This record gives sequence, structure tokens and C-alpha cells, in this order.
Amino acid sequence: MNVGQYICVLDVEGGQCADFWAVQVDDHDHVLSPPHFFIDALRVQPKIGDRILSNRRLPMVTMIHDDVGWHDMLAPSCDNWRYEYTFGIKGHRNCCDNFREAMSDRGIDWGARPIPHPFNIFMNSSVESDGTIVIRTPTSNSGDRLIMRAEMDIIAVVSACPMDLTETGARGITDIKLYVSDSLEALKGIKR
Amino acid sequence: MNVGQYICVLDVEGGQCADFWAVQVDDHDHVLSPPHFFIDALRVQPKIGDRILSNRRLPMVTMIHDDVGWHDMLAPSCDNWRYEYTFGIKGHRNCCDNFREAMSDRGIDWGARPIPHPFNIFMNSSVESDGTIVIRTPTSNSGDRLIMRAEMDIIAVVSACPMDLTETGARGITDIKLYVSDSLEALKGIKR
Repeated sequence: MNVGQYICVLDVEGGQCADFWAVQVDDHDHVLSPPHFFIDALRVQPKIGDRILSNRRLPMVTMIHDDVGWHDMLAPSCDNWRYEYTFGIKGHRNCCDNFREAMSDRGIDWGARPIPHPFNIFMNSSVESDGTIVIRTPTSNSGDRLIMRAEMDIIAVVSACPMDLTETGARGITDIKLYVSDSLEALKGIKR
Repeated sequence: MNVGQYICVLDVEGGQCADFWAVQVDDHDHVLSPPHFFIDALRVQPKIGDRILSNRRLPMVTMIHDDVGWHDMLAPSCDNWRYEYTFGIKGHRNCCDNFREAMSDRGIDWGARPIPHPFNIFMNSSVESDGTIVIRTPTSNSGDRLIMRAEMDIIAVVSACPMDLTETGARGITDIKLYVSDSLEALKGIKR
């Protein structure tokens, strides 16, 4: 995505989480970082108009439109170890491998470097006053959209999270559609 | 630290945050990762007996003793950009530079790679039900200690956080003492 372009992440059937990462196009050590947003906004929930920062405290994307209004920025992306150690399943599809494959498709070997912390669009997590995290089935409905604007030239990566063993994806694994455009109006006009 | 050794982080005067990182001694892409702990424990607050995981979902340190019982795992370490962009101060001492210098002292050039997410010992943050983060002055008193055991061979790095512009360090910047020992009893016997 070029600076100023918009991305629309659309939940086709509803209830599907989408892991979103952004990496600066010419410097892969410069990545979207929800924890840096936490301390800038003093919130773990992003709202319309929020600038989600990078690990260098620069705005990387801005929240433009949000049909759901509740997401997750706490959970790291699921990986092969998550499925193996917690659920005893080897070789389960996972968001970290999806990230590496998407980067590889662009000729970038991510290797063993840590996977950047994701913005888990449509994921439904809450933190209680004693610090307990509660994860519930996403509240997103069929056709719900989140639109963001790129604030620098980025590689945007999205993975329809294949978690089917917790409430995160309790409705099964379904499609996420992506649209990128210079025109916000075009994206707002997409049929739900 | 070798596997099985203990580290004691002691707040000398009270009210001082300590950023703690751990990096596997022979693989610097393998680091302590509080967000991976979040999803394992379903808590943002660590408790006695908790294993804090790495970015590969392996236990890296275990919480053994804690005089305070409330910390922070949400905030990234402060860096030069935090002081410059938020407070207009250039060249402020910061935890990220402290991390890089500590690694450099061991002959490791961390370069521009992202700094691992820290465990902010004694930092007093809470999350409200609407996702708002509230940061208050630490509740730690003079001599309060947190003791952890290394679950693999790690480079442990601690920075007495030099934040003096927010509630994080509202009592000023004071000393953190570190003790590493094979003997838990020796660390528990340290005079407060």
C-alpha cells in the first residue's frame, strides 16, 4: 500500500478474526506495533480517528471506518507451537506461517525473526479489573468492515485466523475479503 | 543466567519501575514475550508460579517471589522517540538505549532490530472495562523484591526506567539492585 491508500477488511460471513500486520516497505525492522499505540492512546481498544503507531512511534495506519467497534490488540498471532503445545495438534494452519508465506511471495525471507505483534481485527477480547483476559466469539456480522488509511508506504498482510479450537473462532473458519483503493468512497460503497 | 538460576530485582527506595528483558543466550531471535504469556495465562498480570513464555511459547522465566503483586506487561520500553514526540525532549535517557548498551557490553550489536517487549516490574498499570489504560505511581516500597527463575540459558537485561515525566516514575528516578544466585534462600535472605 502507498501512503494515503485505504484498505478495507471485510468479514464475509461474520465472526471471523483477521490478523493484520504492517511492515514499512523499505525497512522491515519498522513495523506496526499495537503496544506502542497502547501508551500513546492509553487504550487497548482502537477507535475511529486513532493512529496506530509503529515500533518507532510513527503513525503507520489510521482507523477510518469500523462497523464493529471492538477488536483485540493483546494476543500474538497463533503459530505452530500454539496448536502443538496447547492443543496437541501438529501441522495446524496458523497466522504466523501465513505471514511468512505472504512475505515470501514478495521475495522476503522472514526467517526465524520474531513475527510482528498483530492487530486482531474483529477478535473479541476484554480485560477485567483484576487483569483477567476474557475471549468471546466475535460480534462481527456478515459484511462488517474495518477501513484503515496507510500513513506511510507499507506492506500490509492479513490472515483470516485459522483458530478453530477456542472462542476466538468458535463459528468456524470463514473468508476475509480485502480491498485496497485510493478512494475511500469506493470502499464505503462496497455492498455488505 | 544459566537455567535454574534466580534473579532478584530489588527496588531500593520504592516507586521505581524496572524494565526486564530476556534473550536466549545462543539465539537472539528467541526472546521473552509478555503477549505470549497473556494468551497462555489469560491474564495481563503475572502471579507467583506463572511461567512467562517466549515468542516460541516456551517458559523462559518463572515467577517465584513477589513483594508487590502488581506490575505491567502492556507498555513497550521508552525510547528516544517517546521523549521527543510526546514531551519534546531530545536525548533523554531511555530504556531501549539501556537495552542496546547492555547487549553491546556483551559484544552484541542489536542494531535497528525491534527491541523485545519488556516485563515492566513494579510499574502500576490497569485496564478498565472499556479498554482504557490507567497508569498510577508504583505501589512498591523500599526493599520490595521480585524473584524469578531462569527456565533456559538467557541474557537477562534490566533497566531502571528513567521515565520522569508521567505517573510511571512520578517519584523520580531511583536505583534498582540486581542479584543473581543459584540459591533461592540466599536471595530471600537479602536484607530489605
